[in-house]
Amino acid sequence: MNSVKVAVVGASGYSGEELVRLLLRHPRVNLAMVTSRQHAGKSVAEVFPKFASLPNAKTLRFTDSDPETIAGSVEIAFLALPHGVAAEFAVPLVGKGCVVIDLSADFRVHDPVVYKEFYGGDHPAPGLLKDSVYGLPEVYREQIRTSRLIASPGCYPTSILLPTLPLLRAGLIRSAGIIANSLSGVSGAGRKAEISYLFAECNESMRPYGVPKHRHLSEIEQELSLAAGTAVTIQFIPHLIPVNRGILTTLYLSPDRRFEGAEQSAALEREIEQCYSTAYGTEPFVRLLSGAALPDTKNVVGTNVIEIAWRLDSRTGRLIVMSAQDNIVKGASGQAVQSMNIHRGFDETLGLI
Amino acid sequence: MNSVKVAVVGASGYSGEELVRLLLRHPRVNLAMVTSRQHAGKSVAEVFPKFASLPNAKTLRFTDSDPETIAGSVEIAFLALPHGVAAEFAVPLVGKGCVVIDLSADFRVHDPVVYKEFYGGDHPAPGLLKDSVYGLPEVYREQIRTSRLIASPGCYPTSILLPTLPLLRAGLIRSAGIIANSLSGVSGAGRKAEISYLFAECNESMRPYGVPKHRHLSEIEQELSLAAGTAVTIQFIPHLIPVNRGILTTLYLSPDRRFEGAEQSAALEREIEQCYSTAYGTEPFVRLLSGAALPDTKNVVGTNVIEIAWRLDSRTGRLIVMSAQDNIVKGASGQAVQSMNIHRGFDETLGLI
Amino acid sequence: MNSVKVAVVGASGYSGEELVRLLLRHPRVNLAMVTSRQHAGKSVAEVFPKFASLPNAKTLRFTDSDPETIAGSVEIAFLALPHGVAAEFAVPLVGKGCVVIDLSADFRVHDPVVYKEFYGGDHPAPGLLKDSVYGLPEVYREQIRTSRLIASPGCYPTSILLPTLPLLRAGLIRSAGIIANSLSGVSGAGRKAEISYLFAECNESMRPYGVPKHRHLSEIEQELSLAAGTAVTIQFIPHLIPVNRGILTTLYLSPDRRFEGAEQSAALEREIEQCYSTAYGTEPFVRLLSGAALPDTKNVVGTNVIEIAWRLDSRTGRLIVMSAQDNIVKGASGQAVQSMNIHRGFDETLGLI
Amino acid sequence: MNSVKVAVVGASGYSGEELVRLLLRHPRVNLAMVTSRQHAGKSVAEVFPKFASLPNAKTLRFTDSDPETIAGSVEIAFLALPHGVAAEFAVPLVGKGCVVIDLSADFRVHDPVVYKEFYGGDHPAPGLLKDSVYGLPEVYREQIRTSRLIASPGCYPTSILLPTLPLLRAGLIRSAGIIANSLSGVSGAGRKAEISYLFAECNESMRPYGVPKHRHLSEIEQELSLAAGTAVTIQFIPHLIPVNRGILTTLYLSPDRRFEGAEQSAALEREIEQCYSTAYGTEPFVRLLSGAALPDTKNVVGTNVIEIAWRLDSRTGRLIVMSAQDNIVKGASGQAVQSMNIHRGFDETLGLI
Repeated sequence: MNSVKVAVVGASGYSGEELVRLLLRHPRVNLAMVTSRQHAGKSVAEVFPKFASLPNAKTLRFTDSDPETIAGSVEIAFLALPHGVAAEFAVPLVGKGCVVIDLSADFRVHDPVVYKEFYGGDHPAPGLLKDSVYGLPEVYREQIRTSRLIASPGCYPTSILLPTLPLLRAGLIRSAGIIANSLSGVSGAGRKAEISYLFAECNESMRPYGVPKHRHLSEIEQELSLAAGTAVTIQFIPHLIPVNRGILTTLYLSPDRRFEGAEQSAALEREIEQCYSTAYGTEPFVRLLSGAALPDTKNVVGTNVIEIAWRLDSRTGRLIVMSAQDNIVKGASGQAVQSMNIHRGFDETLGLI
Repeated sequence: MNSVKVAVVGASGYSGEELVRLLLRHPRVNLAMVTSRQHAGKSVAEVFPKFASLPNAKTLRFTDSDPETIAGSVEIAFLALPHGVAAEFAVPLVGKGCVVIDLSADFRVHDPVVYKEFYGGDHPAPGLLKDSVYGLPEVYREQIRTSRLIASPGCYPTSILLPTLPLLRAGLIRSAGIIANSLSGVSGAGRKAEISYLFAECNESMRPYGVPKHRHLSEIEQELSLAAGTAVTIQFIPHLIPVNRGILTTLYLSPDRRFEGAEQSAALEREIEQCYSTAYGTEPFVRLLSGAALPDTKNVVGTNVIEIAWRLDSRTGRLIVMSAQDNIVKGASGQAVQSMNIHRGFDETLGLI
Repeated sequence: MNSVKVAVVGASGYSGEELVRLLLRHPRVNLAMVTSRQHAGKSVAEVFPKFASLPNAKTLRFTDSDPETIAGSVEIAFLALPHGVAAEFAVPLVGKGCVVIDLSADFRVHDPVVYKEFYGGDHPAPGLLKDSVYGLPEVYREQIRTSRLIASPGCYPTSILLPTLPLLRAGLIRSAGIIANSLSGVSGAGRKAEISYLFAECNESMRPYGVPKHRHLSEIEQELSLAAGTAVTIQFIPHLIPVNRGILTTLYLSPDRRFEGAEQSAALEREIEQCYSTAYGTEPFVRLLSGAALPDTKNVVGTNVIEIAWRLDSRTGRLIVMSAQDNIVKGASGQAVQSMNIHRGFDETLGLI
Repeated sequence: MNSVKVAVVGASGYSGEELVRLLLRHPRVNLAMVTSRQHAGKSVAEVFPKFASLPNAKTLRFTDSDPETIAGSVEIAFLALPHGVAAEFAVPLVGKGCVVIDLSADFRVHDPVVYKEFYGGDHPAPGLLKDSVYGLPEVYREQIRTSRLIASPGCYPTSILLPTLPLLRAGLIRSAGIIANSLSGVSGAGRKAEISYLFAECNESMRPYGVPKHRHLSEIEQELSLAAGTAVTIQFIPHLIPVNRGILTTLYLSPDRRFEGAEQSAALEREIEQCYSTAYGTEPFVRLLSGAALPDTKNVVGTNVIEIAWRLDSRTGRLIVMSAQDNIVKGASGQAVQSMNIHRGFDETLGLI
């Protein structure tokens, strides 16, 4: 079988590193190029010793390549670059016929006005927005098959959207008053030399941040609004937690109706269960927990799985939905590879289990 | 100056251990007795090597004493016992004239029916409930001065009540729809040999638990209802986080009014600031954060301080209030010592700074 | 291609769990049976939610099977049982023609007298000792191919023996005076409900234990003595470190000669490098570090790789050798699967990269 | 009683921060000045929120003061500056009559040639070396009383010297062949924005570094040589461990004699016990462990105590000595305050228990 030639552009951070790992192990991928200005000339094995035993890790060397060279070398380019910089690569790459899977925020938000509100500058390439798809496979699988520019979702958005979208689409929850309380491991802050993220500043610490208006709200609300058919504004508070990896999100939702007594509760529970089962029963990377089980990031770290559990609370009339995922895998690089599998017609789980 | 003779009953767990530390260092306390069945005969220095350099740690020995002996030896007994067992000691101790500061849940809930609903059995000593005070110094300081039975609050309740009560009393937030999302360090689970709390089961893990009806709701809602003057039901979801100590609570609250535009926001902000300032401006252990600062458990661990910060969110119309405290100090043993200081007429901060 | 039917006996601990993961993913293995008294009746997906997405995890159920049933069902049985109990299974299993790969200490030490000295009781099955091989693939690959009873090495021994054996066999270091200082993650203590291994007892803690005579010395010294051709006694001090996984060993060795000045040092360095290169240059799971790189457990956790680096110290005349591995993979379950691959004639890396 | 006016110069790092904490709480100290270029103008409470409840934390403000201003304002200046920079302050401060307690390495090594070998440049102020004392209170208490320049020891040196010096002075161990294997928490690397010390790079990692010639060897060997009366060269390998604080050192020592059998062992044990008891029996900050107890950093973190335990190993003929301390307290700032107490004639434990 043919393999596909791919590049990872900007492979020095955590998402880029995870892409390198997944793509080196992928049975249908030829990782032909990894780029990073700071690591140019070094082999993957030197930069990431933990991958030294993977195939080609000793021979594949980082380069500091421009878009033209990349487009001439590979069919698919994964961009693991800061927002703004990603667009500088995406425009010429798409122009030269390369498929781009962008892990930055540059093409996730369809409306340049919203982009500007949350990212603080004019959108760098508004002309390309119409060609991009929001790369959430469980929602946009068909569009991913044919798109030349896949905007892979952020880590928080994935943890919030997958549990919420089916309920909103089914009208089982109200679109107003949604609250998402999220906890993230420190790798979510990126591999940046900042004092706030030193070990001794994060260990034995728990803290909220970005209160109350985090940038990821822009793509979260866009997708929730599309599902609800009406403009949705949510409350989202992220927290930094001393683990390397993982996002745990607890969602506080209002069912579309009051429920009192065992009978009404049971009826609503059946509808919610049916809703999730229909949405995700056959999804390979969504694990609907049953019985007494609750999500735990340790059960998903290192995998492309998102765990989801929920509870009705008859005391408050609310629906509590909880999700756990690896912020770098399902929240970033694994999801991007999942999109590549879909785009190329591979088995969607290839290289991901 | 005279010192007070005290005992710590049940000193083998984390709260009991912290009481021993605080009381050994307290300038007006003579810690005359520490009890524990399993450690009887050993010195404090042997059981808690980290305290070996504190005064008396080598000579003070654990005993397995009954209430009569305790009441004959000390003026004040701190109970760091499981709920149910605490009442078995409290009844005879109070009967013999000992002041009891109980860290268990036994006397926190005034209504035996609510106790039974949340703790699963008849209240062990309903006759004593009328004599007890809920030992939250910032709220019940005057009653603590004269009570013979001080029911020291739970860790989660402290982290939720202190930020919420002033707002409720001032009518600045609605009593309906309160949501408390809490994160706790693993010491909150106690020093119990259970596989769920092993290092390798908690490290690199984040998980909700006790969803949706945690026992602490009983005392939280009791106190919120008293402040609001109406029955209050809240949503409370705790999570287990891999730190030794600390509770971080994020509260999602609804102001009593809509606010739009800079002017209305500023007016509401002034009222909230005034409310907190009035309530806690002179409290030694409540730290109201200002500017860009947000609570971080690493700034309170080892101290009796609770940090509080808040933000109005004009997008959602909500008020976000966040608190951080040490679950074993302000959330348990430090607060109990604070109550003792008040009860004895000592400076309230004695031995706590 | 044919697959081999295997069982994991005693699959509730960390080594058993890792065996289940590796064997479920192994392309030539049919994991037909997992046993555990406490989990009997439950599926692998229920007991280990993190494996729920692996093939067969939802259908394969734990049983509480006796040796006869196991021997009737599989060709190879992995024993992840406490020492002593393992022998009770190994004897009948081998008797009925089953190949046994034992992760316990029961058959690692050839001399029952040494076993008794270190494990405190008579050897439970001395008659089988002659049939067993010490399952260190890099040393006993040929014997592993044909043995019916493979005694898979302990975690500390692997981390000490692989760096040391080639030097001893080549006569490059003296057999006297070897010191091994080892650091282990907490999973090394097993999944046991003991207060010492609670999160809050291990986190923010570093401590030696088992000083000065750890049980693993018995197998370490046995293998070192065989390599040296003379009785070897070493100093070995293990320490408990707050990480989930990993062993880091620092070895203090004395070269066979004095070396002074650049020339003598360079000559000795060449010999050591040649020695390691000859021993491990083509080994798939031994990573000899070069340049400035030093071992780091984070580069091997989750893999079957052991990293080795060394430095000559001209100030002290010593050779410092350092190794890092995952205590549960190369130190236990991965190594056991590596032995199975060898025994069955599979590619040695199958299911392990 | 009179208090002493002191300054902390360079108070932005971990040692400076700990000095601020200890000095704000010290009953005989008036912390009159804290300096830091980056924090100039901010209050201590703003820069270190965790100290906001300590006396004066809200009014004391950081300045960017020069030595003349400092000398004009305080009697004692603590220097928490990088090596080289410290000397630039020490020279004028001492010149103007200020007592200097320097936490850097600048005045620890008496021989400028050794300084240059280990620190890579000419000594910045060789003329002052004769006036300085190595500020290890248990060894140089008398000199500390009268010295104008106290060179407070490094964290690793303290953990190695205190357990070793009495044995060397008593001739109970050989001066040749000493090995020190040390583990340090990440705060030991300082509050520096470097990728190597990010949370996600250190958590779940164990690694050696600085192999084989760490700078601290210069002061360690100087003091060991003085105690032994002969030049001593040791092997010292430090490791980085994912804890915030603490140093655990395991020393591999050779007794002055062979010991075989129970009688010889018991005799040697008595001598060692006597030696330590004589050296440290009345020292307030040295905790000699007895019975089965072994050092654990969690028992000393936050205190000025060093724990020491030892074991004779009759199998190898070695003496294993282990120590645990807080790298920032006994290993840095607490020890500096201890020296200040001695110098001023205060109770040596003042502000430290």
